[in-house]
Amino acid sequence: MGVVCESRFRVRYAETDQMGMAYYANYLIWMEVGRSDLCRQCGFSYRDLEREEQAFLTVAEATCRYLSPARYDDEVVVETELSRAKSRVVEFTYLIKRGDTLLAEGKTIHVVIGPDGRPRSMPERYLNLLRSTQ
Amino acid sequence: MGVVCESRFRVRYAETDQMGMAYYANYLIWMEVGRSDLCRQCGFSYRDLEREEQAFLTVAEATCRYLSPARYDDEVVVETELSRAKSRVVEFTYLIKRGDTLLAEGKTIHVVIGPDGRPRSMPERYLNLLRSTQ
Amino acid sequence: MGVVCESRFRVRYAETDQMGMAYYANYLIWMEVGRSDLCRQCGFSYRDLEREEQAFLTVAEATCRYLSPARYDDEVVVETELSRAKSRVVEFTYLIKRGDTLLAEGKTIHVVIGPDGRPRSMPERYLNLLRSTQ
Amino acid sequence: MGVVCESRFRVRYAETDQMGMAYYANYLIWMEVGRSDLCRQCGFSYRDLEREEQAFLTVAEATCRYLSPARYDDEVVVETELSRAKSRVVEFTYLIKRGDTLLAEGKTIHVVIGPDGRPRSMPERYLNLLRSTQ
Repeated sequence: MGVVCESRFRVRYAETDQMGMAYYANYLIWMEVGRSDLCRQCGFSYRDLEREEQAFLTVAEATCRYLSPARYDDEVVVETELSRAKSRVVEFTYLIKRGDTLLAEGKTIHVVIGPDGRPRSMPERYLNLLRSTQ
Repeated sequence: MGVVCESRFRVRYAETDQMGMAYYANYLIWMEVGRSDLCRQCGFSYRDLEREEQAFLTVAEATCRYLSPARYDDEVVVETELSRAKSRVVEFTYLIKRGDTLLAEGKTIHVVIGPDGRPRSMPERYLNLLRSTQ
Repeated sequence: MGVVCESRFRVRYAETDQMGMAYYANYLIWMEVGRSDLCRQCGFSYRDLEREEQAFLTVAEATCRYLSPARYDDEVVVETELSRAKSRVVEFTYLIKRGDTLLAEGKTIHVVIGPDGRPRSMPERYLNLLRSTQ
Repeated sequence: MGVVCESRFRVRYAETDQMGMAYYANYLIWMEVGRSDLCRQCGFSYRDLEREEQAFLTVAEATCRYLSPARYDDEVVVETELSRAKSRVVEFTYLIKRGDTLLAEGKTIHVVIGPDGRPRSMPERYLNLLRSTQ
């Protein structure tokens, strides 16, 4: 596995909780920002995969290990890597950092479905674009 | 205007921010809970309005005045009232309370659109059901 | 492990995404609703653990497997079980259902910290209350 | 009123709803991104106002008019202007755009409070920095 996509943004006030840190569910949203950017880096918008091909990457599994808290206004970097790209299953791994500090690491496994909710295979063209990052 | 619908739920930890109170955007979500419940009280699910009639109540305007903070685990009550029900425009007003304390008051104005995003009129049957609460 | 706490609520429109199902990060929020309710069932509010004892249950790890989509207005039930209750580590497992259909299953692992962010042990009284559910 | 701060970001998938557009409460979060950036443009982080001065800008009122939907992956620009900066009340106005299209316009009114929740006046230094943008 090779290329990694970097996404960079600041923690929003809305994302904090009364513990004074980013609420844990938001990390899954940040992972989504990461894989959206990775798609773009591969040469397509995930939006087009849905619109033009009626192919949807639903999440089958998500995991996150939280190591150090992210706080409001922190500049967070999400490093997204495509760790598996099969016809029906796609997997991303993520490192979420602030500077050199690793805040969290995560993984999402996705299944390709059609508008009817049934599994289908990833359109060839998009699969090839994704694989070009590996 | 007469009947009012009451929705009751607890503030989620996810909804707090580092100020230790519910983040202000969540009140708009609570208003949505209120108007969903009001529809149900009128005898239909808003879901069916979308599914069966392809009619969507988009928000044209939302206002909220915040009077006293809501905190994690507070039991909040949303009192929703249908304040206008015309064929193309529907308006709800909300009182958000904890016990006798008024936390916030809000208003949302909705326009009925079709799947193409164009304005259309509210299906008669649903309009009548809504009006039955007034 | 024995007792299980049931939380029941409807999927909010805010929680859906353009795929027409509940967005995957929201399941982690629902898990939080589940463990808040489990605390209440054990005889305390998680709020008091924070306020009175300055003990905070941060999330160290979260996992969710998504089996079937939840949709707007669905009545969802979260079954929360305390699967580990040690002095410094607490673990919950969750089944998220709609009627008899299992929508998702998840797990969160929590570490007890003080206001300084350092690990500490769970106050005896609360630990005993939690263990009473097992 | 003069200077305007521009914030630029893409609509997240998490922010869409089943109508296929950004859910209306998210616009209030985007406004928060806008005023955070405006503070930074004025030479300070809002975080420091809280941390160093124990001054908190709670929201007293928020309004948003929705003109055209924002969709997933759209690049949105928030133009934030400080429209009032008194010692105890601060007001921001927002234009939310995609290219030349105005998507929404909003306003938030803020009251300065201390950690006890009581009104206080804005620290002179920060008030002057804010006023320098006008």
